[in-house]
Amino acid sequence: MKIQKEYGITVKKGDNLSEWYSQALLKTDLIDYGPSKGFIVLKPYGYSIWESIRQVVDVRLKESGHQNAFLPTVIPESLLRKEEVHFSGFNSEVFWITQAGATSLQERLALRPTSEAIAYYLFSNWVSSYKDLPLKLNFWNSAMRAEIKSTKPFIRNSEFLWQEGHTVHTNSKEAEEEVRFILDLYEIILADYLAIPVLKGSKTRKEKFVGAVVTTTLEGMMPDGKALQLATSHNLGQNFSVPFEIRFLGSDNQEHFAWQTSWGISWRLIGAFIMIHGDDRGLVLPPKIAPIQVVLVPIYKKDQYDQDVIPKSMELASELSKAGIRVHLDTRDEFTAGWKYNDWEKKGVPLRISIGPKEILKGELEVVRRDTLQKETIPQNGLIKRVTELLDLIHTSLLKRANEALQRSVANASSFYQLKEMIQKQVGFVSAGWCGNENCEISIKEETGADIRLIPFESTPKWDSTMRCVYCGKKAEANPLFAKAY
Amino acid sequence: MKIQKEYGITVKKGDNLSEWYSQALLKTDLIDYGPSKGFIVLKPYGYSIWESIRQVVDVRLKESGHQNAFLPTVIPESLLRKEEVHFSGFNSEVFWITQAGATSLQERLALRPTSEAIAYYLFSNWVSSYKDLPLKLNFWNSAMRAEIKSTKPFIRNSEFLWQEGHTVHTNSKEAEEEVRFILDLYEIILADYLAIPVLKGSKTRKEKFVGAVVTTTLEGMMPDGKALQLATSHNLGQNFSVPFEIRFLGSDNQEHFAWQTSWGISWRLIGAFIMIHGDDRGLVLPPKIAPIQVVLVPIYKKDQYDQDVIPKSMELASELSKAGIRVHLDTRDEFTAGWKYNDWEKKGVPLRISIGPKEILKGELEVVRRDTLQKETIPQNGLIKRVTELLDLIHTSLLKRANEALQRSVANASSFYQLKEMIQKQVGFVSAGWCGNENCEISIKEETGADIRLIPFESTPKWDSTMRCVYCGKKAEANPLFAKAY
Repeated sequence: MKIQKEYGITVKKGDNLSEWYSQALLKTDLIDYGPSKGFIVLKPYGYSIWESIRQVVDVRLKESGHQNAFLPTVIPESLLRKEEVHFSGFNSEVFWITQAGATSLQERLALRPTSEAIAYYLFSNWVSSYKDLPLKLNFWNSAMRAEIKSTKPFIRNSEFLWQEGHTVHTNSKEAEEEVRFILDLYEIILADYLAIPVLKGSKTRKEKFVGAVVTTTLEGMMPDGKALQLATSHNLGQNFSVPFEIRFLGSDNQEHFAWQTSWGISWRLIGAFIMIHGDDRGLVLPPKIAPIQVVLVPIYKKDQYDQDVIPKSMELASELSKAGIRVHLDTRDEFTAGWKYNDWEKKGVPLRISIGPKEILKGELEVVRRDTLQKETIPQNGLIKRVTELLDLIHTSLLKRANEALQRSVANASSFYQLKEMIQKQVGFVSAGWCGNENCEISIKEETGADIRLIPFESTPKWDSTMRCVYCGKKAEANPLFAKAY
Repeated sequence: MKIQKEYGITVKKGDNLSEWYSQALLKTDLIDYGPSKGFIVLKPYGYSIWESIRQVVDVRLKESGHQNAFLPTVIPESLLRKEEVHFSGFNSEVFWITQAGATSLQERLALRPTSEAIAYYLFSNWVSSYKDLPLKLNFWNSAMRAEIKSTKPFIRNSEFLWQEGHTVHTNSKEAEEEVRFILDLYEIILADYLAIPVLKGSKTRKEKFVGAVVTTTLEGMMPDGKALQLATSHNLGQNFSVPFEIRFLGSDNQEHFAWQTSWGISWRLIGAFIMIHGDDRGLVLPPKIAPIQVVLVPIYKKDQYDQDVIPKSMELASELSKAGIRVHLDTRDEFTAGWKYNDWEKKGVPLRISIGPKEILKGELEVVRRDTLQKETIPQNGLIKRVTELLDLIHTSLLKRANEALQRSVANASSFYQLKEMIQKQVGFVSAGWCGNENCEISIKEETGADIRLIPFESTPKWDSTMRCVYCGKKAEANPLFAKAY
């Protein structure tokens, strides 16, 4: 029959993050590998997390006047080639359909690497007057990009689930505001639901989205000192509206090319909070998106099975469920309570409650927090109140701890030697002066492995006119954050 | 600039259903055509309907113990070939990826025509003991099948949105029950939310799903006398578990091959209710899934604009919205009230409420039902109650009318001549005796264009031992329903 894999996670997170991460995904029923390289499968436990994230983002987008729609998965080659910079950026990783049944297609069809080309082909027909604008659409779908280098579940896959927003505006200012509104929205959602703190800023010309005028970004820091891009919001200016001919008749009765934005977040967020919050025992899930928030483990000896414990546990489960808390009662007979504790710890359930004859007698319950493993005894009649408090506390505490780690990960370098050393030591983000020249940016990357992750909107230390480029010594135009990255 | 298309629907539904259908989709902002043949785009108005259907089905599936998950879009050729009957059934319509960037792939990747092959490859790893069963998974995704013949939006496309359920059981009886449970669930949802009545039964061996033991089906009748398959639920027996090696250790400590089912509904349901309920003015949307259930049209002369009507309309809109009714207030200045009436009628909004100075004075409102175009005056203080009643009434009345049409569409033929004549006259379903021989089934199809849509679970007239096959005259084994179909 099937080979039984070793049950627990066999490596410490601090010793080998990469191996720990794989095990934390595979041994907790979050994902599996698909049969083709770079493609992963979400099992129910993993998909449920994505459903929660999607729900939260979806509500916020709809509240702010965005509407969902559906685009085909395939894009004709000629259409994808229409904006040349865009095409050249994606060309090497596009999957191509060339056959249907036994027939060779006349034109190759690209699997959507992103939907700018097909969306804007359509928008050119949908937009004719300023009265049609702003057009603010969002698409929940999957994108496909052939990953030839190393793949990593949720972080770098040949197919990933995401949402991509595409908006069209009558003027540049409104597009700029949309770009920032979305980036701020993402920041809030990451903090409020996933307990992920980020740094916020712009990408350099070299690192921006292919075809964009400006790319703004949220960057997170992983425990191994490598940055992870978590969300981007692009100001496309008129770079696409010109080749795709998205024109509108203005209130001035003149024709204008429209101004556009695009933005997205993906299931990469799941990978991020797993790396940030997890520990040697396994996952530590942020309570607001945990598929199970509270697990109830009944404690009984065989002969007491049907007496008090199970009925009481069911009563408590029902009480929690009615209060809107996602609860699971673990009644599996074949496992001991201790085994179950390990199992649910590994799966990252925020709170575990045990209930046995002793607890019933005393009218008490034993609650254990997953994040701190702290145990406390609470009265049964205060269950909902305390569970709700504890879930909030866990969230706050995860965010606080992650935020402290993020702050600690930012260092200042005043020389290239210092920058290089800090990167080697896996400090995290290194703030340093930069002249704005792409050659310096490229040289630094070549010599340290670090690229410019972002030019922070609010840099600390503030850029001042005395600052020098850490590489060439010329006058600095900005002090960006350098880091190695996933 | 853009060519202004003729605004209204220019053909009567009864004169040319096909042209009416196209216009009803394109002129109401439901869909657009994608750049590649057979691929459609859902605009927000159309996608919102799919979101509602998905929500309803999703809740019911979760309530009955099914869990959502995610599978890759691509399936390696070798995997798709594993169950031969299945592969041969889809082979001619599979889209193949052969290149990634500039690289030719070593093995072709199929775009999912359906997920049996990839899901069961995974299930063979996920299932090892009877304790892992039943496994009841559902996937919301899109499937791709190259449609080389005529395509029709929602009905026959090269890519379509759907859900596909896949379950694994320890025994045949449980699988059979699942198949029927799901078919019944679909029937209830179609009636309760989309006002679509159906006939329920099994497919013949010739018409069943490739690889299934038994396919059960819900069949609807369109106004042109052609049937439309609306949902299927398949008993796969052990046809897939053997080649895919889905085995479990039973409570008897023996290894067994598992028993499986698969089932699905797609956005075809949207096409169905549009054809069934629509009229010469355009769409008539079932209230429960209408993106807008009530549209408020304020009536005012230019000089009265800012006085009473708009504030009062906003107040009413807010009242409706708070009561959970999806309401839209049409404040577009550039259109007359009459133009707006036509517009919302075309888009199928169930209820239209007009409010002008006269109505405000009298404390009344004018409400018009989309389905009957009946007008009534209601007191403002009874708004929520009456609107709720009317939305229910519209649903009931749409379902009743559709059900009467379905009943009228079923005729009995006692000779082949009669059968042929009835099919020619576009009666709809024709009930006739059949010997069970595939040759007769094929001959009837060739000579009349009608195939066996279903063998009803409860046939009327009941099959009896004196019945004869309408084609060969031998003893009838069933009396199926024949019809032309989409």
